[in-house]
Amino acid sequence: MDAADPRRLLTRLAWILADEGHESGLAGQLTARGPRADTFWTLPLGLAFEEAEERSWLLIDDALEVLDGDGSHGIREPNPATRFHLWVYRARADVRAIAHTHPPAASALAAAAVPLIVAHMDATPLFDDVAFLEDWPGLPTADREGELIAAGLGARHALLLAHHGLLTAGRSVQEAAFLAVFMERMARQQIDAAAVGGAKPIDAGEARRARDFLRSDRIMGLTFDAWARRAERRRRSA
Amino acid sequence: MDAADPRRLLTRLAWILADEGHESGLAGQLTARGPRADTFWTLPLGLAFEEAEERSWLLIDDALEVLDGDGSHGIREPNPATRFHLWVYRARADVRAIAHTHPPAASALAAAAVPLIVAHMDATPLFDDVAFLEDWPGLPTADREGELIAAGLGARHALLLAHHGLLTAGRSVQEAAFLAVFMERMARQQIDAAAVGGAKPIDAGEARRARDFLRSDRIMGLTFDAWARRAERRRRSA
Amino acid sequence: MDAADPRRLLTRLAWILADEGHESGLAGQLTARGPRADTFWTLPLGLAFEEAEERSWLLIDDALEVLDGDGSHGIREPNPATRFHLWVYRARADVRAIAHTHPPAASALAAAAVPLIVAHMDATPLFDDVAFLEDWPGLPTADREGELIAAGLGARHALLLAHHGLLTAGRSVQEAAFLAVFMERMARQQIDAAAVGGAKPIDAGEARRARDFLRSDRIMGLTFDAWARRAERRRRSA
Amino acid sequence: MDAADPRRLLTRLAWILADEGHESGLAGQLTARGPRADTFWTLPLGLAFEEAEERSWLLIDDALEVLDGDGSHGIREPNPATRFHLWVYRARADVRAIAHTHPPAASALAAAAVPLIVAHMDATPLFDDVAFLEDWPGLPTADREGELIAAGLGARHALLLAHHGLLTAGRSVQEAAFLAVFMERMARQQIDAAAVGGAKPIDAGEARRARDFLRSDRIMGLTFDAWARRAERRRRSA
Repeated sequence: MDAADPRRLLTRLAWILADEGHESGLAGQLTARGPRADTFWTLPLGLAFEEAEERSWLLIDDALEVLDGDGSHGIREPNPATRFHLWVYRARADVRAIAHTHPPAASALAAAAVPLIVAHMDATPLFDDVAFLEDWPGLPTADREGELIAAGLGARHALLLAHHGLLTAGRSVQEAAFLAVFMERMARQQIDAAAVGGAKPIDAGEARRARDFLRSDRIMGLTFDAWARRAERRRRSA
Repeated sequence: MDAADPRRLLTRLAWILADEGHESGLAGQLTARGPRADTFWTLPLGLAFEEAEERSWLLIDDALEVLDGDGSHGIREPNPATRFHLWVYRARADVRAIAHTHPPAASALAAAAVPLIVAHMDATPLFDDVAFLEDWPGLPTADREGELIAAGLGARHALLLAHHGLLTAGRSVQEAAFLAVFMERMARQQIDAAAVGGAKPIDAGEARRARDFLRSDRIMGLTFDAWARRAERRRRSA
Repeated sequence: MDAADPRRLLTRLAWILADEGHESGLAGQLTARGPRADTFWTLPLGLAFEEAEERSWLLIDDALEVLDGDGSHGIREPNPATRFHLWVYRARADVRAIAHTHPPAASALAAAAVPLIVAHMDATPLFDDVAFLEDWPGLPTADREGELIAAGLGARHALLLAHHGLLTAGRSVQEAAFLAVFMERMARQQIDAAAVGGAKPIDAGEARRARDFLRSDRIMGLTFDAWARRAERRRRSA
Repeated sequence: MDAADPRRLLTRLAWILADEGHESGLAGQLTARGPRADTFWTLPLGLAFEEAEERSWLLIDDALEVLDGDGSHGIREPNPATRFHLWVYRARADVRAIAHTHPPAASALAAAAVPLIVAHMDATPLFDDVAFLEDWPGLPTADREGELIAAGLGARHALLLAHHGLLTAGRSVQEAAFLAVFMERMARQQIDAAAVGGAKPIDAGEARRARDFLRSDRIMGLTFDAWARRAERRRRSA
């Protein structure tokens, strides 16, 4: 596996999001760009995030044809819903990895159709970088959904999809992980804060300054590494 | 054990619902149809879901007489409350397995006597398929309760029982599991969403389309398999 | 250890309440009557519920003098707050075991100073059997607190202590456990139900009928045994 | 390591706060005074609380220069945000250890910008000893933040930082731990209590009396020891 191969990082991403409670049946997909245009790595249908191994990832093209990878448990086909990722990759040259999940707290905001509020220092990485898609276009298996989601994301790196879940589009696997983890945690915070008067947005200038510091490759990378080590410890002792 | 024997699947169902936090003392029963009319498999009184083994299941008849199975911990009698399942099996030829539990979030909706709202893609498997029984007829040990519950369920595959819990009636063990897991998770989502403005129902047409896709045997089967593997991993490492 | 020695059951009670999240620093005490009047078994100060072993229990008298038992970690003195249990044992000849804890949900009701609502079948064991003490008399180290708590309990078997926690007074260790576990779970249910309209009390007649069934020695005993086996499995695999 | 060396206790503090769910990416720092003025022990950037070992701690001076300690995973530099601790140590001769974390419930109060309410016996250790800083001065990397935080703390031993997290300043590592654990738990209680009518403050006189008892070195020390043993058991069985 050469240095540019994203499978080692993707596997850690899958474990991290499993540890953070992002599992929701077969819903959600994690992907990273493949070696040539319109290809990306994804997990086979039916494999849970916590079961991912480096060899399980499938390299697929824009027709969802499998070009490489073993799959798992005898399945070597992608989740058909992965298709909408293609639209995001096409629209956004800067994006190298996408995490799309239905975790509990972000899904509760989604069910209530309310956008994420940035009210805490730990939410600042998401400041002015989370779009909100109010319409739920149904199951994302057709081209229309891909177009709507790519348009909803716009130039941002995260998206709350009403009645659906979250999406993060990172310039690295680490960034996709970092945003997904904090987006879910901050959604939980917003729900908790609602009970005691509601989350109060923070000052935009300070939020932007904090975001720019926390979104550095070094901070995101060190955070990802700590979560990856946690995942590795848990798997070793299981 | 021949292929039609449901005990292997029932055991996974029990483990899955234990892992999902459905335990509530001795409350709840999981059953599947037996080899002849008016018989079904159930666990012995006093055995927790997480303790189920294939040999623990008891085959009982309509008088709760035990026809087969070892039981566990020296107990070879069913929970008397299992009796109401008979009424559901009689009324619904399509139903092959029933999960009845008192999990925390569905029980909180039940305590508030409010029906489940379908406000998220992951709730669409339940769209227009969850009945709501507003009256609590007391402990379900007599025939009256069986009649009320079977009538409350009607032609649907899930039922929220006010002041009581949930029931899913599947055309397969996998369907009973799939609906029970998502019903509890979506009840939790509804409680969380209530804090931030309340769950907003989704478009009926899209919900129906998503339901029909997600309720396919393949999707439900792959989901069940992933949860069953999770249960097996946890038991291996415990 | 003869059959009447409560230490084996008390140890399981301690493990069960630890597993159910009742730990709150050094707060809370679990006791059972000793072999003669005005003596009871309790844990040494500073030992967590989950650390209890059969030999850790101390037999103390009405002056908190230690008459028997090893203690643990070099400590062979009881928590001074245990003293108020004496008042309950004196006032209630039927009571053989007391569980007093500060678990999160019951403590939240206590902080809000609202009584428990019986709105679910699983709460019926507590029907008309939970007293509510609105005044917090401060730390329960003096006789005044013992008198207030014993008076607050009256002829019931459970008590919600505002700003403080819960107390269950069982005719057996199993009953003290059964009531404590469900009291905390039902407090959590009441909090969850509050978000979706609030817990609605159930019919008194049905609640009483269900309570009388669920509070039988057999049901409470089988439930306790299942929780005790869970605790033993967790300790074996830890 | 001589008796005054705080690294053994700091390591347990880190494990305890990890077990209590205080992790939030790289946010938060735990420190204790070093052997000479304007020096203190802290963890290297990027090491999670649950990964702390006695040798990982770094002794740093007021310019964040590393004077002693191994660091971990090849990193031997402190989190630059640790700098504000210096201001607290300078302002408060009585303080020997500081815990600053962003745990979920305290962070939700922080996001809502509401102070902690003392409404329960277990909250009394914090009675009249938690300051509230309503302004969020942005990322605490510069001197201005240190001045604001030290001023906000005043003569108290705990501080809720709006939009940010919690800080406890202990006369011992044990006190910093004790206050941090209960502050987060009581924040969760306040959120839960809000759903059922809201936390009602307790009588000031009784709260003060309870606080003075519970804040004794013996009670805090025994509590810390029990949590430290829990952490050690979990690490042994992992």
